[in-house]
Amino acid sequence: MAIRSGELSAVEHVEEALKRLDGDQHNAVVQLLADEARREARERADELARGTWRGPLHGVAVAVKDLIDVAGVPTRCGSNVRRDVPPAPADAPVVARLRAAGAVVVAKTHTHEFAYGATGDVAAEGPARNPHDPTRITGGSSSGSAAVVAAGHVPLALGTDTGGSVRTPAAHCGVVGLLPGFGRLPTDGVFPLSETCDHVGLLAADVDTAATGYQVLSGATGHSMQRDEVRGAVIGLPTGAYWRARDPVITAAVESAARRLADAGAVLVEVDTPGVDGMPDVYGSIVCAEAYTTHAADLATRPEAFQPIIARRILANADLPASEYVDALRARRRLAAQWRRRLSTVDAVLAPTTPIRATPLGVDEVDGVRVGAALLSLTLPFNLARLPAVSIPVPPADGGLPVGVQVAGVRFDEPALLRLAAALVVP
Amino acid sequence: MAIRSGELSAVEHVEEALKRLDGDQHNAVVQLLADEARREARERADELARGTWRGPLHGVAVAVKDLIDVAGVPTRCGSNVRRDVPPAPADAPVVARLRAAGAVVVAKTHTHEFAYGATGDVAAEGPARNPHDPTRITGGSSSGSAAVVAAGHVPLALGTDTGGSVRTPAAHCGVVGLLPGFGRLPTDGVFPLSETCDHVGLLAADVDTAATGYQVLSGATGHSMQRDEVRGAVIGLPTGAYWRARDPVITAAVESAARRLADAGAVLVEVDTPGVDGMPDVYGSIVCAEAYTTHAADLATRPEAFQPIIARRILANADLPASEYVDALRARRRLAAQWRRRLSTVDAVLAPTTPIRATPLGVDEVDGVRVGAALLSLTLPFNLARLPAVSIPVPPADGGLPVGVQVAGVRFDEPALLRLAAALVVP
Repeated sequence: MAIRSGELSAVEHVEEALKRLDGDQHNAVVQLLADEARREARERADELARGTWRGPLHGVAVAVKDLIDVAGVPTRCGSNVRRDVPPAPADAPVVARLRAAGAVVVAKTHTHEFAYGATGDVAAEGPARNPHDPTRITGGSSSGSAAVVAAGHVPLALGTDTGGSVRTPAAHCGVVGLLPGFGRLPTDGVFPLSETCDHVGLLAADVDTAATGYQVLSGATGHSMQRDEVRGAVIGLPTGAYWRARDPVITAAVESAARRLADAGAVLVEVDTPGVDGMPDVYGSIVCAEAYTTHAADLATRPEAFQPIIARRILANADLPASEYVDALRARRRLAAQWRRRLSTVDAVLAPTTPIRATPLGVDEVDGVRVGAALLSLTLPFNLARLPAVSIPVPPADGGLPVGVQVAGVRFDEPALLRLAAALVVP
Repeated sequence: MAIRSGELSAVEHVEEALKRLDGDQHNAVVQLLADEARREARERADELARGTWRGPLHGVAVAVKDLIDVAGVPTRCGSNVRRDVPPAPADAPVVARLRAAGAVVVAKTHTHEFAYGATGDVAAEGPARNPHDPTRITGGSSSGSAAVVAAGHVPLALGTDTGGSVRTPAAHCGVVGLLPGFGRLPTDGVFPLSETCDHVGLLAADVDTAATGYQVLSGATGHSMQRDEVRGAVIGLPTGAYWRARDPVITAAVESAARRLADAGAVLVEVDTPGVDGMPDVYGSIVCAEAYTTHAADLATRPEAFQPIIARRILANADLPASEYVDALRARRRLAAQWRRRLSTVDAVLAPTTPIRATPLGVDEVDGVRVGAALLSLTLPFNLARLPAVSIPVPPADGGLPVGVQVAGVRFDEPALLRLAAALVVP
């Protein structure tokens, strides 16, 4: 908006982003694309001077997770396995769409190695650090994209989400994270973690920016954040121990979010989520089988190029029988169908994004809870059920680390879900 | 047509079908549904008397492969494993659609046990026999559906095709067999062989009946067999040893079909089909993994209920690693995309349906060729490439056993493909 009006020039905006990213203290940036970004910023500024405005992302600096191809830049996936890969020959379609809409790609961002982890602290480049407390993890695997948005370097970044890799770091870093419905955005040019579960998603400074980004990426039209999506909306609150957060501040945040929705006219109902306890195992079998298949050749010839914990984790699945994987795919289809039937009377579901907040770097277990598994436990059910979801930061009652709550769309599609999310934002 | 005009009553037509099916000599019928069929025939006749005509299948007798649920009838899949299963609680959607359009289901038909074979001679009920020579196989696995149409008992029958199970028996028995594009018709209520490759298909006495059946099943509108689809159509003839029929009479039939198309104004071009040699292995890994997963529990507890050769074949895949299956799924996606690109300039591809004609019962190998594998070799590539295909009988030059040629649709969808097929029929 400021760029269109001339109040802020694209050149100044991009220059400021580059300066901030260059001085980043969170190990969030793995490649700064300064020359190309400056050239594009000048082109966008010249276009605007000639009266050409490509839309709300015209001249806006965006960052891209280093799992997604940007033309001319190697896609290293946080791994020494890919230290010497040639530059990507072309933009991934999602990057091409952002660029066509005027966005300026300023940096590739940190990822948990091959996106195979939810903590953001295992990568060839070392751990990403949480802008709210650099001794703590960012969450992952879209660690750098969450951190550069949280640090205020850029308003928007691309991430990927297979079981929670956009929403988890969004919650930990206090930004908005969008998981679109499965298949809504193309994953070509994105290094796969699990091709039957991968999504491209967005990390954004606010809901409106996320909505704009999704509109550009999906080609959806008629986006308007004005419409009231809350009054009369039916919001499901999942029952059962599975959904209970470990951190009481997170529980309080979900309750306050529910109250905000009720006060705005939404109808809250309890819903049960059949089979949710078995979902982590189903998810594990699917992702493990697909990831092992992708990396088998490199693990056989140069296992030392992987981070040791990632190599161990992938190799643990070398002997998975096909029937276990086929069973997991069938369970996913069955559960997704079951959820759609059971939840068919609600517009959206409200739940915590993660059961715990950002843990200290190097700590694998907190109060008997395995951090890596816990961080995906509340996000992966929506991936398996093939529902879109948005994580929104909600102010923590103790004034401490960020807390995320998520809404997942059943009858609501992404634009409606984002309008609902907007109602959760505490001004 | 005859039924609508009153020339033939639905009651007489169904009665005649029941009589023929009851006297069937080809082991093609596994359950005759006489009472229900008579009741429905009377209802359809009464409707017509009141002026209600449901469409071109009104009052027409159809048969259904015993892999597909018909309400109130057990779905035994040609297996003693399912000898005592309860009646299916509901029609499979494909059966429900036929019935809603006025068709009368008169019989369940023979299937190769669990559809796991292309010959039609391995089932709890014993082998199906070819109406053109009862000492020979029908082809399979939709053995009974092909035979009842070939014998003139019914004009139309449902089958299933995972790698050729509709087109192979159609070719062997001298009837029309349609494989719709993957996902075009619902497979709910159909016992799975390979859920990522199963299709419901049609066996019909002529192309027009197949087109009518497909129109009813797909809900497609505007079907007309009048339009000339041949003039200017670009027809690809696949090159390479893979596509060469073993039987010179089949080769001659394909050549004569090509000439008919050229004479009618089609443009014939040679096309290559990248990766086709590897397709049988890709197909094998996918189907084996999925079939083993389906049957693992029964094979563990009562292997003796299976036909021995089927148990051996499924158990051979018990130890398939997940990575091999995932690789096969990736290969299928890659090959399908490659074929679509490579064949993008043709409307359809013309090829033999099978490389050999119906072999004697009990003969597993002919001239060094394994019959079971040979029978799927020319059909399964189109399943993997996700293209619709129709097999049409072409008169054999030696006046002997039937020969089938197939056209597969690239730019042509099913209705266009059927109009093309109509041009291949020798009056």
